[in-house]
Amino acid sequence: MAGSSWGTLLTMTTWGESHGKGLGVVVDGCPAGLPLCEEDIQKYLDRRKPGQSRFTTKRQEGDQAEILSGVFEGKTTGTPISILVRNMDQRSHDYNNIKDLYRPGHGDYTFDAKYGFRDYRGGGRSSGRETIGRVAAGAIGARLLECLGVTVAAYTRSIGPVEINMDHFNLERRFSNSLCMPDPQAAIRAQEYVEKVMAQGDSAGGVAECVISGLPAGVGEPVFEKLDARLAHGAMSIGAVKGVEIGDGFLAAGSLGSVNNDSFVTGENGRVDKASNHAGGILGGISDGSQIVVRAAFKPTPSISRPQKTVNRDGQEVETVIKGRHDPLVVPRAVVVLETMAAFTVADMLLVGMSSRLDRIQRFFNT
Amino acid sequence: MAGSSWGTLLTMTTWGESHGKGLGVVVDGCPAGLPLCEEDIQKYLDRRKPGQSRFTTKRQEGDQAEILSGVFEGKTTGTPISILVRNMDQRSHDYNNIKDLYRPGHGDYTFDAKYGFRDYRGGGRSSGRETIGRVAAGAIGARLLECLGVTVAAYTRSIGPVEINMDHFNLERRFSNSLCMPDPQAAIRAQEYVEKVMAQGDSAGGVAECVISGLPAGVGEPVFEKLDARLAHGAMSIGAVKGVEIGDGFLAAGSLGSVNNDSFVTGENGRVDKASNHAGGILGGISDGSQIVVRAAFKPTPSISRPQKTVNRDGQEVETVIKGRHDPLVVPRAVVVLETMAAFTVADMLLVGMSSRLDRIQRFFNT
Amino acid sequence: MAGSSWGTLLTMTTWGESHGKGLGVVVDGCPAGLPLCEEDIQKYLDRRKPGQSRFTTKRQEGDQAEILSGVFEGKTTGTPISILVRNMDQRSHDYNNIKDLYRPGHGDYTFDAKYGFRDYRGGGRSSGRETIGRVAAGAIGARLLECLGVTVAAYTRSIGPVEINMDHFNLERRFSNSLCMPDPQAAIRAQEYVEKVMAQGDSAGGVAECVISGLPAGVGEPVFEKLDARLAHGAMSIGAVKGVEIGDGFLAAGSLGSVNNDSFVTGENGRVDKASNHAGGILGGISDGSQIVVRAAFKPTPSISRPQKTVNRDGQEVETVIKGRHDPLVVPRAVVVLETMAAFTVADMLLVGMSSRLDRIQRFFNT
Amino acid sequence: MAGSSWGTLLTMTTWGESHGKGLGVVVDGCPAGLPLCEEDIQKYLDRRKPGQSRFTTKRQEGDQAEILSGVFEGKTTGTPISILVRNMDQRSHDYNNIKDLYRPGHGDYTFDAKYGFRDYRGGGRSSGRETIGRVAAGAIGARLLECLGVTVAAYTRSIGPVEINMDHFNLERRFSNSLCMPDPQAAIRAQEYVEKVMAQGDSAGGVAECVISGLPAGVGEPVFEKLDARLAHGAMSIGAVKGVEIGDGFLAAGSLGSVNNDSFVTGENGRVDKASNHAGGILGGISDGSQIVVRAAFKPTPSISRPQKTVNRDGQEVETVIKGRHDPLVVPRAVVVLETMAAFTVADMLLVGMSSRLDRIQRFFNT
Repeated sequence: MAGSSWGTLLTMTTWGESHGKGLGVVVDGCPAGLPLCEEDIQKYLDRRKPGQSRFTTKRQEGDQAEILSGVFEGKTTGTPISILVRNMDQRSHDYNNIKDLYRPGHGDYTFDAKYGFRDYRGGGRSSGRETIGRVAAGAIGARLLECLGVTVAAYTRSIGPVEINMDHFNLERRFSNSLCMPDPQAAIRAQEYVEKVMAQGDSAGGVAECVISGLPAGVGEPVFEKLDARLAHGAMSIGAVKGVEIGDGFLAAGSLGSVNNDSFVTGENGRVDKASNHAGGILGGISDGSQIVVRAAFKPTPSISRPQKTVNRDGQEVETVIKGRHDPLVVPRAVVVLETMAAFTVADMLLVGMSSRLDRIQRFFNT
Repeated sequence: MAGSSWGTLLTMTTWGESHGKGLGVVVDGCPAGLPLCEEDIQKYLDRRKPGQSRFTTKRQEGDQAEILSGVFEGKTTGTPISILVRNMDQRSHDYNNIKDLYRPGHGDYTFDAKYGFRDYRGGGRSSGRETIGRVAAGAIGARLLECLGVTVAAYTRSIGPVEINMDHFNLERRFSNSLCMPDPQAAIRAQEYVEKVMAQGDSAGGVAECVISGLPAGVGEPVFEKLDARLAHGAMSIGAVKGVEIGDGFLAAGSLGSVNNDSFVTGENGRVDKASNHAGGILGGISDGSQIVVRAAFKPTPSISRPQKTVNRDGQEVETVIKGRHDPLVVPRAVVVLETMAAFTVADMLLVGMSSRLDRIQRFFNT
Repeated sequence: MAGSSWGTLLTMTTWGESHGKGLGVVVDGCPAGLPLCEEDIQKYLDRRKPGQSRFTTKRQEGDQAEILSGVFEGKTTGTPISILVRNMDQRSHDYNNIKDLYRPGHGDYTFDAKYGFRDYRGGGRSSGRETIGRVAAGAIGARLLECLGVTVAAYTRSIGPVEINMDHFNLERRFSNSLCMPDPQAAIRAQEYVEKVMAQGDSAGGVAECVISGLPAGVGEPVFEKLDARLAHGAMSIGAVKGVEIGDGFLAAGSLGSVNNDSFVTGENGRVDKASNHAGGILGGISDGSQIVVRAAFKPTPSISRPQKTVNRDGQEVETVIKGRHDPLVVPRAVVVLETMAAFTVADMLLVGMSSRLDRIQRFFNT
Repeated sequence: MAGSSWGTLLTMTTWGESHGKGLGVVVDGCPAGLPLCEEDIQKYLDRRKPGQSRFTTKRQEGDQAEILSGVFEGKTTGTPISILVRNMDQRSHDYNNIKDLYRPGHGDYTFDAKYGFRDYRGGGRSSGRETIGRVAAGAIGARLLECLGVTVAAYTRSIGPVEINMDHFNLERRFSNSLCMPDPQAAIRAQEYVEKVMAQGDSAGGVAECVISGLPAGVGEPVFEKLDARLAHGAMSIGAVKGVEIGDGFLAAGSLGSVNNDSFVTGENGRVDKASNHAGGILGGISDGSQIVVRAAFKPTPSISRPQKTVNRDGQEVETVIKGRHDPLVVPRAVVVLETMAAFTVADMLLVGMSSRLDRIQRFFNT
């Protein structure tokens, strides 16, 4: 498949540019009978919408999702679900000055190298607005998981040097601050940090974390479509992500086998459980029934207001100052992108995994 | 596709278990006319072969690759290349005691949950021997890249707490020590560390790093098949990997935009170059012409000789001591796995990217 | 991939129902730099538009294509091209009487069996309007082929028992009659036949044929993605198609090797040519440089105005008379569907085939 | 995927050339717990084995299948099943004279055009021996279907001008004659025809038909992965096939809606049934619960002993007489290829279709 599709049985195909007519997605393979309305999608889109705090771009977009197909009488029909979000508040003239030069840290140069030219307005396809299609599709994945008893929740783990304290962790509080941190005290410190960075015309990075609960053991397709491999692929495909971890991630590399191994124990109702979860819920590329933990590192927003050195399309060195309206950090708005990408990925793999055992297939077909 | 295939135009399909008749791979879509012989593959397999130092399992396997198809008169024909490696030194009886229990940190439980039962001998398909197929296929990817001026090289970056010092970095020296470290002094300290860990019946983890040089700008397919996303997927699909980074990775999350942005500069012959490479050679999911840097964190080998607590297939808690022959750390042998997976992934994407521009396609067809 | 996507490097993902908000397609992987405007697509959509003759449904639809993304300053950018066609003239109340019963020859029953319920209005996703997305996408495929010197043309070969006479064949004349027959005399006889059938409240079938000229030898991917196999797949996926042939098709089964084999001869400029083309331009699943010929048999429209026996959702036998506005035969409007599906399929495979030889790849990369 | 893989959840990847070391296949995604042994595969391979009658090539091959992986204690494990068949009776010197010329009706020229050169021995990858991998994989598909109550059976429908008489149709009798005809009287006439053709140094074509019984309604993925579209793709990918039909096929094009529509009736236990089966068991691209009927037209074997005109690699016209051992007609041996390809394709789509409805998925996961 070309690069704008994701998934095996449950698939999304996204499209759209920052300053084109709109953005959207086609979700195919969604099981029939799922109750779905525009509000189910809108509530996720609203979480990534710009203009909601002083830490996000001031661009004003309603980002209203319109479902064009695949839903009849309030339920999905099993046919493709097309979702459209029209662009409203483009200010393309802001970008005339970057038309012929390459912003550092952006995809301008690589898009030109690959395609020969680019829609430079607002970054075109490489804009953060590209994630609208993912979030809309992922909302459907999350809705499907919800009907199967699986929940997915992401939040900000760190902003620059400020990390949440797990002793103060409170998932419900993540929406109590504009940085999406489930530790209100850390959020205050992080806000101070970001304000300082903003005052210097600079930008900050951070880490988002996503936990998936209620997923049964057995999901993931060794050896190349392991659950962790697909989650890593999905997370790394989000703009600005430079690292992905499952469970203890890089910390595990410095640990010992005797520490890092999670002992199996007898859990409730005699089920197999684990005494710890260094593995982040995945063993051998397959879910083990405990919580899945995936983490993504976001680099600082490349658009900063300080002057920067770069080259133009003719290869000459120039200095540039980036105009336009930009986020000083992407993590708070990216949290919902990570969450919905993970939800969609897991939903797809849950469906794929239904065919792993003959006895279950026979029961399915009553044979 | 089911889980044992990887790639879009250049694909590999691996098969085989630790204690079955053998392991192998079918590589499809390899361009015709590539000079290829068994030695081209063998030299990579030899780098992952067991029994080569005191830090690896004592299992003795020749791991001789036989090319069964797709090569004629010393060159690939464009048809599928099937490669077979027969298993020799299985000691399946070592595994009778784990038949009915779940080793901590292994895929035993999740395979049972997914498939209902498992080939428990030596870990079956979840054994490290599964990587034989990947390495053989990746050797072909590396051979193809070589003919296109691209080189790929991986090495050990850290073992437990011991990291290489970039001031002492010497890629050629990586083969001078059994830990594959391109810093001989660090290698000595790491060996001391591993010996201490082994003496305690424990195991160690580490980080492998891979650099890809000579790749032209323009490789990668936004938005889901970005080069970094596919490299992350490929790396995370290797057993024991818990984290993946591109360029500065998680460090970037704590950095500032003004620091993390790589300035573009005018390079040799007026080409676009970069003053630094925090990005690890990828911008917007597309190669930027500088060196690609990908890093993978490996957890400590889950097989340790200390007694561990676990449960059996009936869900009862038991204590187990793992027999069999195991590596106290996987990183030195995994280095070639990361290298070949990266080579194969990049080779595939290089082919996919050939169709990005009409003018180049027209030139290709002389139209 | 789920069922609404088609293609490997050049892909289309279609969506939409007969009486929903609209229909459309996302084309991904289209090379950058292709001159493209809405008129390029509209001219193909107009050929399948209803209400253009007395042989087609009286439903009035403008079927205006809107390009939402992927085109900038008149050229494709290499990013996904989203195309939207809004529905206008739905008369959904016509379908209330079929809500709970299964029309013979339609997908009503099978959609219910698969999905549990269906959007019954106008056949929902199984309506002929589903082809709007294919035609819009195929128009882009045809545009791309045009830039590479390849032309694709389809026409009606037979209607019921009336077949064109190859002695009177004139491709340019296919648009001179509403049945798309490249033999005006046969068209007159066919019109008489269709009028007789319509007078009896019945419907007719027919055969459409498509020829592809200018395709270089070497396109097609043995053994499962042979050019003929993909063309057959594409053609058979069009609603109402029950048979597909390449070259002489079923006639070849009754022929002799000495007759059916096309002798190779020395053609213009010493190129390899063929003395005949029983093979329809494909040998071993790969184009041979001569004209590709593909043929599709369309069954009679299942919607007829005569009373028919069937069962309802409760499994009870009932009699039904189908209301709504229907074509008495689909072939004339299906001709452009076959043409665009073939164009898209060939365009995709042309791109895929670029990586078949190392020497050409090296030349491409100047290595 | 590259061209040697087939399937979505249940996949096969075939490899091998006529005169290489062997041929084989990797089947991935086969559900765990399927009882499988080499004999299950061998009985299908034996049906396509050469040297079994005077109508087949005299090449002697044991074609013994060896299962290398994926089966443990008599059952599939859910991991890839690798099957190897070694070549034995190659006589490559027979082919030296075709090394530099293009046999009419063969893929020699197109392989050269695509790949630059070819393994000319015995046709290399374009040999009929390529089907060994398909048949071995399809045997597994058939085994899986058998466990789910679905049976697949193919036979010869016609040889040259001699067609079976459906009044004498007796499926069990298809193995009573070397032509695989389920009408012994027709078989006698067909044998006479073939002998006459052989005496003239010529070859014959024919039609094979396959029926699939017991498949539940609801299998097939509109709009591109319709069941008929995938069956057509699979059938057309078999060497020498030039046409494919579902149900009445091309006959339907000459029929009337009132005749071709199959009335729904109330069947046993109140189930929805059909009074006739012109549709061949597929409506809207989805199985309707009645028998699936697919038909494939095979061209006459291109290898004939008469002298033929052709060109050599230098483009010069030459006369050639084909040596080697060839079948005067491929249909009898191709019957099992069609049967196993259909079985594999249907088995894959049956698994894919399990995720079409939320209520069934919820029941599957007990949620």
